[in-house]
Amino acid sequence: MIQKLISKIQKTGAPIVVGLDPMMNYIPEHIQKKAFGEYGETLEGAAEAIWQYNKEIVDAVYDLIPAVKPQVAMYEQFGIEGMKAFKKTVDYCKSKDLVVIGDVKRGDIGSTSAAYAVGHLGHVTVGSKKYAPFDEDFATVNPYLGSDGIKPFLEVCKEEKKGLFILVKTSNPSSGEFQDRLIDGRPLYELVGEQVARWGEECMGEKYSYIGAVVGATYPEMGKTLRKIMPKSFILVPGYGAQGGKGADLVHFFNEDGLGAIVNSSRGIIAAYKQEKYAKYGEEHFAEASRAAVEDMVADIAGALKQAK
Amino acid sequence: MIQKLISKIQKTGAPIVVGLDPMMNYIPEHIQKKAFGEYGETLEGAAEAIWQYNKEIVDAVYDLIPAVKPQVAMYEQFGIEGMKAFKKTVDYCKSKDLVVIGDVKRGDIGSTSAAYAVGHLGHVTVGSKKYAPFDEDFATVNPYLGSDGIKPFLEVCKEEKKGLFILVKTSNPSSGEFQDRLIDGRPLYELVGEQVARWGEECMGEKYSYIGAVVGATYPEMGKTLRKIMPKSFILVPGYGAQGGKGADLVHFFNEDGLGAIVNSSRGIIAAYKQEKYAKYGEEHFAEASRAAVEDMVADIAGALKQAK
Repeated sequence: MIQKLISKIQKTGAPIVVGLDPMMNYIPEHIQKKAFGEYGETLEGAAEAIWQYNKEIVDAVYDLIPAVKPQVAMYEQFGIEGMKAFKKTVDYCKSKDLVVIGDVKRGDIGSTSAAYAVGHLGHVTVGSKKYAPFDEDFATVNPYLGSDGIKPFLEVCKEEKKGLFILVKTSNPSSGEFQDRLIDGRPLYELVGEQVARWGEECMGEKYSYIGAVVGATYPEMGKTLRKIMPKSFILVPGYGAQGGKGADLVHFFNEDGLGAIVNSSRGIIAAYKQEKYAKYGEEHFAEASRAAVEDMVADIAGALKQAK
Repeated sequence: MIQKLISKIQKTGAPIVVGLDPMMNYIPEHIQKKAFGEYGETLEGAAEAIWQYNKEIVDAVYDLIPAVKPQVAMYEQFGIEGMKAFKKTVDYCKSKDLVVIGDVKRGDIGSTSAAYAVGHLGHVTVGSKKYAPFDEDFATVNPYLGSDGIKPFLEVCKEEKKGLFILVKTSNPSSGEFQDRLIDGRPLYELVGEQVARWGEECMGEKYSYIGAVVGATYPEMGKTLRKIMPKSFILVPGYGAQGGKGADLVHFFNEDGLGAIVNSSRGIIAAYKQEKYAKYGEEHFAEASRAAVEDMVADIAGALKQAK
């Protein structure tokens, strides 16, 4: 799957991923109205609104981008109905040949991690049959529990040719509370980064491992260091746009081959129509605003990478 | 909810929680056969088998225990159908007046953590209506992202009178990989424990906070230290039984009032019928074996606590 991700990045010229994190207040009124008209103000109605919103955005941008990243929490908050919308979104994006990164941040140990791994990336056995319940291509994973938590995911990834992005240095203001604490003079996130590189070695594609890392755009200097610590790991970079990260901040996350990073934007793309810059599209044409925002993001990053050369 | 947990612990004399982590190979053949007969070897069939298995165990033990802890991964691995069995299990346990600890180990930031919090512990808004999608009483949470990840959960807990158990020192062999690393001469888990105590201060019940911690039974010495660092936090203690923790290891997790800890056993209870000790019950009467295992566990812990006095 890392090969597919790379080849799609090269084909589109867009090392970006669109975060499908549908907050209810992003969803245009006409979509909510229609969904609630059909299903009432119910969890089912909310799930329908999310699904229709996602579908229109995906239809508008799928040819420009290699990948999407649905944030499962935004679906899970609507219970079973929300999870159905998550699954429908994953399936639809795959039918559009997009790489799907399940932003699930799961993490447990042993057989429990294995259960998450088969549920999201692999196949679960029922009697003599096998099923792929959620079937994302990549999943995000939390490293706090150490190797016991990661190894069951690695096994499934090897078998299924899928991949991971492991949290190393997250984009939020308080990420330093634990991640930056010094251990023998070096921050915890560097140690986690070293482990990611080690775990990744046994999971190599051609040039890159299919075990990647999450490092926030909001910490470009740390990104620079981590880029060197994990030379063969793809870095999933959240925090661009709405969280404050700029194109120029991103150059250090890439390797000299122009690869090695994929930059996420969620709100900045899916709720672009709410920004003054894209207001001209109007709420009705929100998906066109998303397309324009993708084009601008691609140009911003390409410009920054070009200037850095 | 912490008051309910405490009063139920006092009433039952059992500071224990039964982990409802139904692996397919724990489920007796007659239950699998019936479920597959009705629904085929499908995800629906697996979910039905899990639900019937859980129900029979809960019916056999609910009067002996204060709480259950369903591990969501074991349900999530069967996709939407599995999540339905999770929800059914949560609802059924609540109808039996059990405190339900959702072992979900979620953790993200800002609005995403808020989404997990409302989905599992609170109410989500749909238009003018509100729904409680999964509605557990407590949830387990991962601290790696720092306060930005925890605070949205605290807000929901305050509003709903629910609670958390935050991972501090996990029971697995490799938990030390990051959690034991020294920061200014002290292990990371102590720093996380201090934060748990701080977060807990703003969420006090009568004597205990409703913000607790997870500390593995497999590390009793560390439990002793953490007990002192977080005097007002309940400690959820996994790792008893199958993972190697013994009653005598547990005394340090309790305060002098005999409270402050709740010990989990999953496999040791729900698959007790597979142990030689309980083999006499036979697979058909697996739930009676679970009841006997609960009684033995309660006696083991009570004996150890008495001896320690």
